Amino acid sequence: MADRFLALDWGTTNMRAYVADRSGQVLERRDFPLGVAGFAPGEAAQRFATEVRPAMQAEALPALLCGMIGSTLGWQAVPYADCPATFPGLAGALHRVEAEGPPVWIVPGLRTQRPDGGPDVMRGEETQIFGWAMADAARQRGTHLVCHPGTHAKWARVVDNGIDQFVTAMTGELFALLRTHSALKVAGAVPSDAAFEQGLVAAGDGGALASRLFTARSRVVGGAMDPRDAESYLSGLLIGAEVAATPGLLGISKGADIAVIGDPTLCEYYRRAMAWHGYRASLFDGEAAVLAGLAAFYRECHPC
Amino acid sequence: MADRFLALDWGTTNMRAYVADRSGQVLERRDFPLGVAGFAPGEAAQRFATEVRPAMQAEALPALLCGMIGSTLGWQAVPYADCPATFPGLAGALHRVEAEGPPVWIVPGLRTQRPDGGPDVMRGEETQIFGWAMADAARQRGTHLVCHPGTHAKWARVVDNGIDQFVTAMTGELFALLRTHSALKVAGAVPSDAAFEQGLVAAGDGGALASRLFTARSRVVGGAMDPRDAESYLSGLLIGAEVAATPGLLGISKGADIAVIGDPTLCEYYRRAMAWHGYRASLFDGEAAVLAGLAAFYRECHPC
Repeated sequence: MADRFLALDWGTTNMRAYVADRSGQVLERRDFPLGVAGFAPGEAAQRFATEVRPAMQAEALPALLCGMIGSTLGWQAVPYADCPATFPGLAGALHRVEAEGPPVWIVPGLRTQRPDGGPDVMRGEETQIFGWAMADAARQRGTHLVCHPGTHAKWARVVDNGIDQFVTAMTGELFALLRTHSALKVAGAVPSDAAFEQGLVAAGDGGALASRLFTARSRVVGGAMDPRDAESYLSGLLIGAEVAATPGLLGISKGADIAVIGDPTLCEYYRRAMAWHGYRASLFDGEAAVLAGLAAFYRECHPC
Repeated sequence: MADRFLALDWGTTNMRAYVADRSGQVLERRDFPLGVAGFAPGEAAQRFATEVRPAMQAEALPALLCGMIGSTLGWQAVPYADCPATFPGLAGALHRVEAEGPPVWIVPGLRTQRPDGGPDVMRGEETQIFGWAMADAARQRGTHLVCHPGTHAKWARVVDNGIDQFVTAMTGELFALLRTHSALKVAGAVPSDAAFEQGLVAAGDGGALASRLFTARSRVVGGAMDPRDAESYLSGLLIGAEVAATPGLLGISKGADIAVIGDPTLCEYYRRAMAWHGYRASLFDGEAAVLAGLAAFYRECHPC
């Protein structure tokens, strides 16, 4: 039984590879500009074999992959596991794909029924959430609210070591679209804590977002805001609206603890918005979480 | 005193010109691909003189312009008039610009204080709203709610023949961005009334919009919606969220009458969303309204 494995966090625009031992200790780490968004059919498997394995000197290691690599854009479409999904249940549902050499598994994404109707989906964040939970036995009991900020932010209710229900908020994508392509676009943005906080205030209870967003423009053209502040204001408005509205969707009441997992800089913006709305946030590094999750899945399928 | 004038509805991406008599009767009508978004400094005045006047055979006519032509992008920045703004007040604030030949006036845009804080602004819609009000004495008394759908939809509370307060919702721009540039983009959209109504339902009370928007994607990848329906669903979701949240911002209660002014096809989508939320909508053609408004301003500065 190998005591090392190849761990890949393989997303839409980027891929990060690790050689790790079964405790999750990193022996080798490397970023590849191989997001699944650009792949032709069959390309993921081929580049994995001809580029990734050799570059990581991992020809002999089993591999565990998570993220959008399990979508139609990636290696192959791995069916979603349905919520509530427990850690052992998901470990038992790892999907082995056809590949030459040592085995390659993909972690299935999750599908849930949203409290406001219709399905919601994630691919990759489930591994980080389980990695976060694995690091402390107290997180494997009771109810926890986990937020994973990003292009498509995920908010999950974790109950007794299972992901019970979750919703996505496309806050990061809206921010990118609005600052790049919209009438809110302004040149020469300068980060401003004060403008970020004005955005938090302007978000109110999170309602009427399409209307409140316009204030990022009307404050500038109406003479009430320096154009260089508009981007921080927009960020505060979008994150503030998300934090105001999303916990309630999952039936979580104000003042709860929230575990925020992801990019530390982005998580810090969320922490400030959460504090403003009366939530207590604890931040966790997303890279450490994905590695802990993949190592835990590896141990589950390779018991000592 | 001239009994005909040149009326221009001059916006960001397009310009429409009319020769009209003082009653607003159209003698000549023409579209010009001369949106102010593409102008170099000084270009608006120059093209007005060398292209628009000759093409309309209007070298001898006074001209009345409304819309973004009065912004920094246009002919010149005409200061906003502040709300509450009455029709006679705005007629008295028409801004005469320097030009060879007969006089040229630009209708000032409006600035308001939003009920949720900060300024809001409009340029052009004020002319349509006054045009709508001029057509019926009953609209010049009491309180009315007017909605002008579009890239930046305007909702105005009209009190005793004045525009008392208004808010903008950037619904149209969000729809365009999301269907063109985002993860919600899908090929082969087919208009669907049923999907539009599912979007109205999914919009709920208009809260948590960044999260509800993602359902346009998660319903497709989660297997609950035909990709061809996603665009109609997205339209219903965005318009539904706007209609659910915006009247309340202006202190208008459910079940009120709403005058919807603008493009007839777009107005019909709003009417359906308003009916779903319990509002009674009456539709008015935006082109007729802008012409009525410009004619009324013209009569005000050129009394018989």
